[in-house]
Amino acid sequence: MSFKLQILGANSAKPAYDRNQTAQILTVQNDLFLIDCGEGTQLQLNKYRIKINRIRHIFISHLHGDHYYGLIGLLSTMHLQRRTTELYLYGPPGLSEILALQFKYSDTVLNYKLHFREIETEKKYIIFENDNITVETIPLTHRIPCAGFLFREKTKPMNLIKEKVNNKFSLADIATLKQGKDIVDENGTVVHKNRDYTHPAKKCRSYAYCSDTRYNEGIVDQIKDVDLLYHEATFLSEREERAGETYHSTAGQAASIAQKANVGTLIIGHYSSRYKDLSPFLDEAKLIYNNTMLAIEGECISIND
Amino acid sequence: MSFKLQILGANSAKPAYDRNQTAQILTVQNDLFLIDCGEGTQLQLNKYRIKINRIRHIFISHLHGDHYYGLIGLLSTMHLQRRTTELYLYGPPGLSEILALQFKYSDTVLNYKLHFREIETEKKYIIFENDNITVETIPLTHRIPCAGFLFREKTKPMNLIKEKVNNKFSLADIATLKQGKDIVDENGTVVHKNRDYTHPAKKCRSYAYCSDTRYNEGIVDQIKDVDLLYHEATFLSEREERAGETYHSTAGQAASIAQKANVGTLIIGHYSSRYKDLSPFLDEAKLIYNNTMLAIEGECISIND
Repeated sequence: MSFKLQILGANSAKPAYDRNQTAQILTVQNDLFLIDCGEGTQLQLNKYRIKINRIRHIFISHLHGDHYYGLIGLLSTMHLQRRTTELYLYGPPGLSEILALQFKYSDTVLNYKLHFREIETEKKYIIFENDNITVETIPLTHRIPCAGFLFREKTKPMNLIKEKVNNKFSLADIATLKQGKDIVDENGTVVHKNRDYTHPAKKCRSYAYCSDTRYNEGIVDQIKDVDLLYHEATFLSEREERAGETYHSTAGQAASIAQKANVGTLIIGHYSSRYKDLSPFLDEAKLIYNNTMLAIEGECISIND
Repeated sequence: MSFKLQILGANSAKPAYDRNQTAQILTVQNDLFLIDCGEGTQLQLNKYRIKINRIRHIFISHLHGDHYYGLIGLLSTMHLQRRTTELYLYGPPGLSEILALQFKYSDTVLNYKLHFREIETEKKYIIFENDNITVETIPLTHRIPCAGFLFREKTKPMNLIKEKVNNKFSLADIATLKQGKDIVDENGTVVHKNRDYTHPAKKCRSYAYCSDTRYNEGIVDQIKDVDLLYHEATFLSEREERAGETYHSTAGQAASIAQKANVGTLIIGHYSSRYKDLSPFLDEAKLIYNNTMLAIEGECISIND
């Protein structure tokens, strides 16, 4: 089952050096989740041949333009493509008011149902779940209300050892084994131990998206051991003071969070337009956390199951 | 003195085939006027190396997204570039409310003064003038309030015949000659005829921007004899009925307007995304009005003085 992140844009504030503003697509099995939607995201989706009508859930972290100015255009294009599939939009207070006002003046009534789910950015809670995953808010520390998102696969069933299970059990017993439980008789006595018939379940993969935020160790517990962490790194450490003032982080700070949270891989992005060359970001982060990569448009990062 | 139009985007509704949405830059002498501002216009400005801080006037024809979704991003980038030069924005009712709401939620107070001039789309009147030009609204027939814009150079001074004028006149007399008037004595008697000392003034150039609109001969009188007419041509004539229903025009209809108005050159654009090949648009229009060209991104059209 695929669990794959694709970067559509990773620049901050304004586009520069052909780097677009923030947007990402997380694919989990057949579901496409769009995370943030800077201006021109629909052009990026076209460029990377991602079918926009496959997107059913959009998550907006906060209402700075570089994270959502492309949303109204994308929603409009979905409408013009005669989409009828329902769309779920998760974002902070104000977003639905902004969209409604623009649709009012363009005299647009969407062909499809747009469900807006206002998120509370200051608490962590599950805002979405389906059979495969849950999505939880990550409270971030920014100039305006801002939440990250933690995508986590649900507990997976145990893998049955076919040659041992073969024709021996009822469907109910098999379900019990898959849940990791022993099979017991009517008196509660164990008649078959789970460990004799199963291999461990595949691991539950996870992705934490943290943009935009000032350095804040308060998020470490929540994102502990995630396979993949995207953490903003707007500045290099030479501008750590500026980072603090503007509620952003440096590459070194992003790496510190990754290290403390013991994540698998760290991806950094949200680069300030003042930097043309991004290699110093990678150098700075790798000094603290070696398993770091730069968010580069078009690149995909898959997590194996 | 330059009078030059550059196309930044000429697709309608949604981007397609690498064609961006509507935006144009008209340069008159040193002034840059941005006309409409579809999503990604700031990227197009970067691409064609147009300095956005040179833009002091922006004209928005109507509130369909393909004509203004790039505006909020452009204004934000101007802010982030620490612009201090005042900016004048002309657009229909609702535009300032939309911008204000987005700036409110992003907690943005612009570094520069943004003057919003709400336009009445149903009447023709001058909304801007400086020493060189006037800009007049052109009432268009669309699904929502929509105005085109007529840019017209002001009457230019007569050209003096230097060898005849040389040292013969006071500064006041020279000013009189430049205005095209004879020089009279205190009794009102003509002592020097203007025609003996001047060549005709250079012609006053003009550009009419008409997008979006259903076919409407009502605009012909206003745009009579303009040097350059941009008229939308969303469809080919095979879809004339669809054009009417959606308040758009066909290539043939745009050419008919150009012919009736006796314009210099017609540029057509605002192509529907259903068309990949644009050559049939040119073929159709040229059958009716030969001096027609396609609006293609990046291309410049200069009008000589």
